[in-house]
Amino acid sequence: MIRLWIEGGALFLSKAPKPRRKPGHALLRLICGGICSTDLELLRGYYSFTGQPGHEFVAEVVACDDKSWLGKRVTGGINVACRRCEWCFDNLERHCPNRTVLGISGQPGAFAEYFTLPETNLVAIPAAVRTEHAVFAEPVAAACEILDQVRIPKGAPVAVLGDGKLGLLAAQVLAAHGAEVHQFGRHVDKLAIASKAGIAAHMGTEPPHAAFDFTIEATGNAAGLKTAIAMTRPRGTVVMKSTIHGEVSFDAAPVVVNEITLIGSRCGRMEPAMRLIRSGRLLLDDMITAEFDLADGPDAFLEAQRPGSLKVLLRAPR
Amino acid sequence: MIRLWIEGGALFLSKAPKPRRKPGHALLRLICGGICSTDLELLRGYYSFTGQPGHEFVAEVVACDDKSWLGKRVTGGINVACRRCEWCFDNLERHCPNRTVLGISGQPGAFAEYFTLPETNLVAIPAAVRTEHAVFAEPVAAACEILDQVRIPKGAPVAVLGDGKLGLLAAQVLAAHGAEVHQFGRHVDKLAIASKAGIAAHMGTEPPHAAFDFTIEATGNAAGLKTAIAMTRPRGTVVMKSTIHGEVSFDAAPVVVNEITLIGSRCGRMEPAMRLIRSGRLLLDDMITAEFDLADGPDAFLEAQRPGSLKVLLRAPR
Repeated sequence: MIRLWIEGGALFLSKAPKPRRKPGHALLRLICGGICSTDLELLRGYYSFTGQPGHEFVAEVVACDDKSWLGKRVTGGINVACRRCEWCFDNLERHCPNRTVLGISGQPGAFAEYFTLPETNLVAIPAAVRTEHAVFAEPVAAACEILDQVRIPKGAPVAVLGDGKLGLLAAQVLAAHGAEVHQFGRHVDKLAIASKAGIAAHMGTEPPHAAFDFTIEATGNAAGLKTAIAMTRPRGTVVMKSTIHGEVSFDAAPVVVNEITLIGSRCGRMEPAMRLIRSGRLLLDDMITAEFDLADGPDAFLEAQRPGSLKVLLRAPR
Repeated sequence: MIRLWIEGGALFLSKAPKPRRKPGHALLRLICGGICSTDLELLRGYYSFTGQPGHEFVAEVVACDDKSWLGKRVTGGINVACRRCEWCFDNLERHCPNRTVLGISGQPGAFAEYFTLPETNLVAIPAAVRTEHAVFAEPVAAACEILDQVRIPKGAPVAVLGDGKLGLLAAQVLAAHGAEVHQFGRHVDKLAIASKAGIAAHMGTEPPHAAFDFTIEATGNAAGLKTAIAMTRPRGTVVMKSTIHGEVSFDAAPVVVNEITLIGSRCGRMEPAMRLIRSGRLLLDDMITAEFDLADGPDAFLEAQRPGSLKVLLRAPR
């Protein structure tokens, strides 16, 4: 089979034997994958990554223990947990200290014709949901995680700082929740999607000082946190969505004096994400910049790195 | 009258006219003041401070509009708020954007024979509470603020990083709340107070990794935040108690991946603090390093800056 492979800061198309599934794991045939900013970070050396990337996917189950999955179109949770520790017992497998993570750490990723994942990680895709929408399940879940962590009243003004993929999804998820979302970005085309979704889009303007009780930091760069803190009201909350490789710095005094909360936010539950995708309330078609064949993966990654780019999809051969 | 004065990075004893009280303000005669780390920071140039410091005090009311206060022994909230904004309406005067702060910003402080404060800021000291205990009300309130911000279950393990004045008070307040407190410090004498209060004291040891759901960062130095993050479990909370002058930096990735919450924490409500002091459950006598006459203020500040020093009190002349 063909697969994508990252090593030494480069992305290769290579051939590998079809993986063997362990008991309890499903063998999956990739239908469609999505390139995430984290994949680009892995390529740049984040986590000293060497391996097969890919954690946003839609696949067909081709072999498994529980035969009811056979032939089903699925996506899945990316954290492969031990299911024996206290985190797992609390349904927080995504924090299991023994976990591997699909395409990120210790678990070969989805950018291959075939890959495996525990059957307990699988999430069925309703027939009404198109593949190119379902492939957004993982990042939509990451956006939904904000609402699992922070109680945001309906109607509350919320700022989203950044207009990249995660910023646009977070803004749409929060708008669907009923918040009054203000998105601050620097790209006309990207903010146009926010506007189309009914979100107040602020192009290139300096965000107002101490104006929001809730600020979502989704710039993807280290300077974003300082701006996010500055635009947040006393006793407000900054949700840290950017996974920055390296150190961030900020002036601690205003955080302490204004008693601001900073909360790190990562993966979320797939089920509410799939329900939201199925509802049709997210503008996902607008967020697809390009589709490539899996065999053209290196070109796809190049396109995904282009500043104006949003989601780039990889289609596997039938 | 005599007063202490900070200007150009130095502390002076100077003379000044007795202040005139505004309507609604009480004229207070200092009985006892406490030197706080913030006072030392002001001396080092924090907030570009020039003025009369002092915000921990016990005083006698010598003139006021509401005559029921006359002759009373009081302490008081340090934030002088507008009482007209939405923060004030929410009983969060300490975040009023129009506030001045006693001895810190725009309000001459308590290290003078006489000073003024709005009558609404006054807190009566019960007869059973000794002056040298009541003078701890402000920092004890700052420690109590942790429990107003974060729900810490009784019996929960909590780490306090740092064994300075605020660290020792935070540890004792949390122990009185019923938490299982572990204090990490570098001073035998200071940790001995924690031990005497029934707190597990860890001297000079590297705190364990990802071990606590709740970590109180009270080191007073910029490196403390990194250590506090490292010792906190996924989904745990770091309470930022150190008011650092300048930038702090940390690796954002573990905060995001482990979904850790960082929460700034400053002043608290005086009433629960005074109740706790009155209960006799805090070892305050052990935390008093020295007492000086107000006229010996410069010597008192020197003593407060000595590394082994805890609370240094200033006594006003009768």
